[in-house]
Amino acid sequence: MDGLISVAQAQALIERHTLFSGSETVPLALARGRVLATTLRAERDQPPYDRVMMDGIAIRASAARAFETLGTQQAGRPPLTLAGETDCLAAMTGAVLPTGADTVIPIERLVATENGYRLEDDYVFHVGQFVHRRGADCHRDDNLLEPGIRLDAPALAVLASNGAAQVEVARLPSVAIISTGDELVPVEGPVRAWEIRRSNEHAIAGALAARGFTCLEALWVGDDMDATVAVLERALAAHDVLILSGGVSMGAFDHVPAALGRLGVQRVFHKIAQRPGKPMWFGTDVQGRRVFALPGNPVSALTCCVRYVVPSLLASLGLGPHESGMAPVTVRLDTPADRIPTLARFVPVRVRHDASGVVRAIPAPVPTSGDFSHLAATDGFVELPPGREPAETDMAAPFHGW
Amino acid sequence: MDGLISVAQAQALIERHTLFSGSETVPLALARGRVLATTLRAERDQPPYDRVMMDGIAIRASAARAFETLGTQQAGRPPLTLAGETDCLAAMTGAVLPTGADTVIPIERLVATENGYRLEDDYVFHVGQFVHRRGADCHRDDNLLEPGIRLDAPALAVLASNGAAQVEVARLPSVAIISTGDELVPVEGPVRAWEIRRSNEHAIAGALAARGFTCLEALWVGDDMDATVAVLERALAAHDVLILSGGVSMGAFDHVPAALGRLGVQRVFHKIAQRPGKPMWFGTDVQGRRVFALPGNPVSALTCCVRYVVPSLLASLGLGPHESGMAPVTVRLDTPADRIPTLARFVPVRVRHDASGVVRAIPAPVPTSGDFSHLAATDGFVELPPGREPAETDMAAPFHGW
Repeated sequence: MDGLISVAQAQALIERHTLFSGSETVPLALARGRVLATTLRAERDQPPYDRVMMDGIAIRASAARAFETLGTQQAGRPPLTLAGETDCLAAMTGAVLPTGADTVIPIERLVATENGYRLEDDYVFHVGQFVHRRGADCHRDDNLLEPGIRLDAPALAVLASNGAAQVEVARLPSVAIISTGDELVPVEGPVRAWEIRRSNEHAIAGALAARGFTCLEALWVGDDMDATVAVLERALAAHDVLILSGGVSMGAFDHVPAALGRLGVQRVFHKIAQRPGKPMWFGTDVQGRRVFALPGNPVSALTCCVRYVVPSLLASLGLGPHESGMAPVTVRLDTPADRIPTLARFVPVRVRHDASGVVRAIPAPVPTSGDFSHLAATDGFVELPPGREPAETDMAAPFHGW
Repeated sequence: MDGLISVAQAQALIERHTLFSGSETVPLALARGRVLATTLRAERDQPPYDRVMMDGIAIRASAARAFETLGTQQAGRPPLTLAGETDCLAAMTGAVLPTGADTVIPIERLVATENGYRLEDDYVFHVGQFVHRRGADCHRDDNLLEPGIRLDAPALAVLASNGAAQVEVARLPSVAIISTGDELVPVEGPVRAWEIRRSNEHAIAGALAARGFTCLEALWVGDDMDATVAVLERALAAHDVLILSGGVSMGAFDHVPAALGRLGVQRVFHKIAQRPGKPMWFGTDVQGRRVFALPGNPVSALTCCVRYVVPSLLASLGLGPHESGMAPVTVRLDTPADRIPTLARFVPVRVRHDASGVVRAIPAPVPTSGDFSHLAATDGFVELPPGREPAETDMAAPFHGW
């Protein structure tokens, strides 16, 4: 179609203008969900000592079957010393193995005697059993975590056990979400018959916050050129990324592209061969700030945000294509869905994992991109390439979650 | 195995002691990720008025092909009135359709004239085109959102557009995460050769925070009965749920079950036929507080947290079994994995969505439940039922993400 670029071209252009956001250091307690920006090396061997793995007694393996208890090797205490083959030390899970000991006998296999324990009659043990050897898990200075991973629960445990009280993570881009249009009024307060409440900023902020982007400011500007320039100028001074909704179609009051041009934001593209979201505009300035100007219809705005803005923001943290959504996961259509000959089509879907491990997408199309009341019953959308024939049941399609 | 209950029995017992956490009202800006605790009804018809869908002119359809412009129907303004069949009003996307108009002609199909516009010569329009009819999306008082849904981006848009500046959501349970053991020292500061840094509280807090549970307090207590009672007593007074790690095996210093008993927390079960995590303990008190006492090994603690604690916490918000993880999704094994004849086995895995829509799990077992340095390279774990034969490639298995 005239002047339209494809979805893949739009993504590639955005990717080319997406730079690493830089790094900052945060306390471990605030690092969850952030993206690591450095390599974590092991502080010590893990385990850091030969570690008792069962509650019981520590012995030096020999032919002896009965042991006199010299005391208790508590956890968190320096190692005691075992003198002879008929001595033992009571030992706790997590304690250091006493010096001279090489084997742990679990309490369940012991019979108490006057001054110690004897082994159950038929009990056979293995030398070295129930000792977690120093360095079995990793050695000091091993690379444990690489840059570009999301800090999830296991990664936080690894950071903690290696003394990383402060963590270098990718800096979160600061984002302005700007709604445009004289018809928009706030969520609270009265609304007149010819007005509508602002909803796009809540949807967009929700989609970003769900991915950990919490450095957000919501702004609004009406259909006035000077006001638009003023608001955009302030937003560009304060933020790395601007997300606008509305003001990018053909109207006499669509000041956004012109206002951005006056502020030095150069258009990279305008209009993509897709529905919804055809009028989407993207540009950058010389400082590398990214400006995504999305159509104002709620379905279009949220779809374009998830399809283009979110992957760009995630990629700027150093996440790879699978984690950023640049290379989305594949699902299988559960029922046919119409396609459009000249436009890619984004179809809202519910997803379910079937009992055989397949992710199925149940299309739940909306009549127009203004109809979003029932979008909350969906999980995201699939992307269907342009085509005359409907997408058939079982066709594989890329999926993006809300 | 003697005295052990199955994974399914443990889950059912926990489910039976999981009550709805109650509700609270929060501002819309803080509602993301929360679970709706009420029904949202439509504030107005949506769209609330016959809405112009394209920038262009509004006309009353007739045989006329040329129109005199009376003015502009701006968005956010009351409707103007169209007098005759050869009149038009310039109209913006999002504006109310002028009184007397029934059709919108897009600007691209118009040729400017001295005092207005004429249609392109070959242009054919349909009566009513590019008008989004009042109530097309929903009617006033329609049920738009039901209790028990997670408030994601589309749901936030629906709340906003219906004036829900305050939202009734499920109250987040308050959770104490309590590490036990004399060998444990903080993440920051020195660590001696026989000590290890506390990591479980970071892993558990990370797993909970990733699900939106942010009402968390981390506590530590050493291997001392009186101190354990004192810390647990304070924790029970301040929190709805206690998650302990360590202190539930057989040792002379494992004071946790006894201390809980003294505080009126009744054991529901102790020990599950599973690896890792066999010694897990669960109990409740008369006020319905839930106490999960997990084994201290990092892999065991995190696995039990994700398998049992997380679904219970999510279910207490009113989420259904699929959303809570009580009914986990199914994935397909990518390589065989050993099973254990008498115990369910939780095997860490990486997952990938293949090009046909199947979710494949690549087993990455750890040598012991103390070996967690490489767990950060995994996405979660699969649950294999007890059995003598290995689980074969392509076997379907329930998956739980970290």
